[in-house]
Amino acid sequence: MFTEKLMPRFSDTDALGHINNTVIAQWFEGSRYPIFKWFTPDLNVNNWKLILAKTVVEFHAELQYGESVEIRTYISRIGNSSFDVYQEVWQKDQKCASGTAVMVHFDHAAKKSKKITEFIVKQMELHAVN
Amino acid sequence: MFTEKLMPRFSDTDALGHINNTVIAQWFEGSRYPIFKWFTPDLNVNNWKLILAKTVVEFHAELQYGESVEIRTYISRIGNSSFDVYQEVWQKDQKCASGTAVMVHFDHAAKKSKKITEFIVKQMELHAVN
Amino acid sequence: MFTEKLMPRFSDTDALGHINNTVIAQWFEGSRYPIFKWFTPDLNVNNWKLILAKTVVEFHAELQYGESVEIRTYISRIGNSSFDVYQEVWQKDQKCASGTAVMVHFDHAAKKSKKITEFIVKQMELHAVN
Amino acid sequence: MFTEKLMPRFSDTDALGHINNTVIAQWFEGSRYPIFKWFTPDLNVNNWKLILAKTVVEFHAELQYGESVEIRTYISRIGNSSFDVYQEVWQKDQKCASGTAVMVHFDHAAKKSKKITEFIVKQMELHAVN
Repeated sequence: MFTEKLMPRFSDTDALGHINNTVIAQWFEGSRYPIFKWFTPDLNVNNWKLILAKTVVEFHAELQYGESVEIRTYISRIGNSSFDVYQEVWQKDQKCASGTAVMVHFDHAAKKSKKITEFIVKQMELHAVN
Repeated sequence: MFTEKLMPRFSDTDALGHINNTVIAQWFEGSRYPIFKWFTPDLNVNNWKLILAKTVVEFHAELQYGESVEIRTYISRIGNSSFDVYQEVWQKDQKCASGTAVMVHFDHAAKKSKKITEFIVKQMELHAVN
Repeated sequence: MFTEKLMPRFSDTDALGHINNTVIAQWFEGSRYPIFKWFTPDLNVNNWKLILAKTVVEFHAELQYGESVEIRTYISRIGNSSFDVYQEVWQKDQKCASGTAVMVHFDHAAKKSKKITEFIVKQMELHAVN
Repeated sequence: MFTEKLMPRFSDTDALGHINNTVIAQWFEGSRYPIFKWFTPDLNVNNWKLILAKTVVEFHAELQYGESVEIRTYISRIGNSSFDVYQEVWQKDQKCASGTAVMVHFDHAAKKSKKITEFIVKQMELHAVN
């Protein structure tokens, strides 16, 4: 598991008075940062190796402005070239949202998916949902 | 089907050079506007009747800055108190992303879900995926 | 003057119930699109010619969700290598915000500012604040 | 001075490969959080006391994804009912952007500006630009 603590921005709220649902996808993507580094250690976008195939977010409770949140990030599936990242947002000891991003290791030059290396698979296993 | 045409904002792009994936959820929510009006005709947020339970987005092709997009919005499931909104983003005759939002008609005072009225069900049927 | 009509996104609102102030900067940047095309006709970001030096936004009235807005864009100063873009947001016949972006024609390879071409100056004059 | 450390989100970048200019306004607003608490200690948006009159942002250097930033927040002017917040973004020992927000203590019921209390003025003085 990776964890990241962050404070919501005021602009993350919406007129209903809570954090807007689309912001949770931004937080989740932000917290996939260590995963991006596995594939592109210098984070050079001209050498990016991942594409996002699908995202799912489930909303369990309203997220409030003015309280920090913790994002928890796990690897929930390791395929040949694709994998799933499972993430949760916690605020005040409550799981407020959870979701899964389906990512694909991709060779942009060859325009096709590519086997995940053994080295990265080992990293993933250390962060697997147990 | 409802349709909305819009121009991506420059700030909708990300460092990979295309529209950031989290923006698509913003566009989809933006285009659920006529659905919000069914439940809250004056759009008064103090009288909001809907909660979002889940969103799924699938990414089929990169979305470019500098070209308008069309959002197509359908009702894909009508339950007793919940329903699904299926949406697509098209750019230059290509379906670039699609997704589903699971929404619940909710009574905030009683804190429980509430049957969708016959009148709204009829509206939904006019916009069903055929 | 250039004009662009757009519908606010629900995610553009904040907890105070109106459009969040930072969104206006996004709309303004979005509506500078024809200006970007003067300098980079194909909008290729690897051939971008402009840098943003400063932005000023003044807030005159609250902007509401559920009503379209019109962005009006003018050139308010033409310098040797820099220029000012003056913009307004109108909603329901009211000017709700206005602002100025100071932009610089920039040669990224040489890392210095560059004279604006006569051709572009002529375009700018057609869109000057009168 | 108040300081806040944060990690840019991937969605904060734009197609030019750096942090989008409009995000800096979001960070600045996010870091005005302790100022909001002076006026509305419980952060209840139905009891908000501030309006934003104007924002200025100057861009000094590109902000990179993948490196944390520090926001520094000062009070740079204390008027009768209005005041200025001066803020800077630092990344890797470099001041990359700075800006000023002009805020007004406002009585929404009476629809007019209101004197800043002595108690808050004292807090402001502790955070003044020296």
